[in-house]
Amino acid sequence: MKELEERIRKEGRVLPGSILKVDSFLNHQIDALFMDRMAAEIHEAFKEERIDRIMTVEASGIALAQCTAMHFRVPYVFTKKAVSGNIGSDVYVSHAYSYTYGRDYEMVVSKKYVHAGERVLLVDDFLADGRAMRAMIDLCEQAGAEVAGICACIEKGFQDGGRKLREDGYRVYSLAIVQEMSEEGIRFA
Amino acid sequence: MKELEERIRKEGRVLPGSILKVDSFLNHQIDALFMDRMAAEIHEAFKEERIDRIMTVEASGIALAQCTAMHFRVPYVFTKKAVSGNIGSDVYVSHAYSYTYGRDYEMVVSKKYVHAGERVLLVDDFLADGRAMRAMIDLCEQAGAEVAGICACIEKGFQDGGRKLREDGYRVYSLAIVQEMSEEGIRFA
Repeated sequence: MKELEERIRKEGRVLPGSILKVDSFLNHQIDALFMDRMAAEIHEAFKEERIDRIMTVEASGIALAQCTAMHFRVPYVFTKKAVSGNIGSDVYVSHAYSYTYGRDYEMVVSKKYVHAGERVLLVDDFLADGRAMRAMIDLCEQAGAEVAGICACIEKGFQDGGRKLREDGYRVYSLAIVQEMSEEGIRFA
Repeated sequence: MKELEERIRKEGRVLPGSILKVDSFLNHQIDALFMDRMAAEIHEAFKEERIDRIMTVEASGIALAQCTAMHFRVPYVFTKKAVSGNIGSDVYVSHAYSYTYGRDYEMVVSKKYVHAGERVLLVDDFLADGRAMRAMIDLCEQAGAEVAGICACIEKGFQDGGRKLREDGYRVYSLAIVQEMSEEGIRFA
């Protein structure tokens, strides 16, 4: 998506540790209308498919999921970080890694809000090593739901999350794929 | 808002400790189109005002803020929970309380994303004792921004957060005010 690549080039900052900071429009301050245009692109790509539900990760994916779900006119669910001792038997549990907190955590979703036979579209702001997407896939599999596709605003193409998911047969759709980045600049795929 | 009251009556569950669980449409599974209708009501109530920015709290308010910001055609910012040792000098810091984690935490917002002179509309899913709203007010004051109004989907009228904010002169707009609730039923204001 041209507009996204231009904004990343203009506003993104590359920090040590392969961090791409885009908090001026994507994940701290959010450009609400641009978020909706990104969701429209996802809808355009998957509109021929049956999509019953959007799934995302708290909190990074909520804005995109809200907009995407509006385009598809379906509900969405966001997975929650489990609080120790707060996991009932009414949830599916998987494991993911939080970069913010630097540790693994338990990702849960209520059994009431993902169902056998549903076709679920996974969305998030970033796709890097793919751990959050893998955890959502795991949750869908536990529920007997089918993953219809995997969407991210920004894929870090120099990490292997997206490649491996494609090799496993998933339809992965990223609005911008960063192939290389350094303080000198950013190259897209 | 009639539709919200009806959904709370139909789908809400009252749990011990004054907890109103509405995770079928508001804060785990989300009815995206209904969320947008709630945001439209907020826009209708404040459309005569100058609103430069929406502010909300991660993660509970992001969906509502996304929709509200689209109606006003302004950016929004969500406050973040500070990670220990991760607070730079480029943020405003306030203090709030997390019911999920049962403890105080530091709520931060980048100085880049709230500015002196801006009129900011605060939104969140719930207004109960008002601590999260007070923390956002504090952040706006630190920035020299003005709070144009305070909006919640559901206000717990039997707690005093909303009343005190109104007494302090803030314009508080809640889409549904729960006056009493028990396992027997819910009474709205």
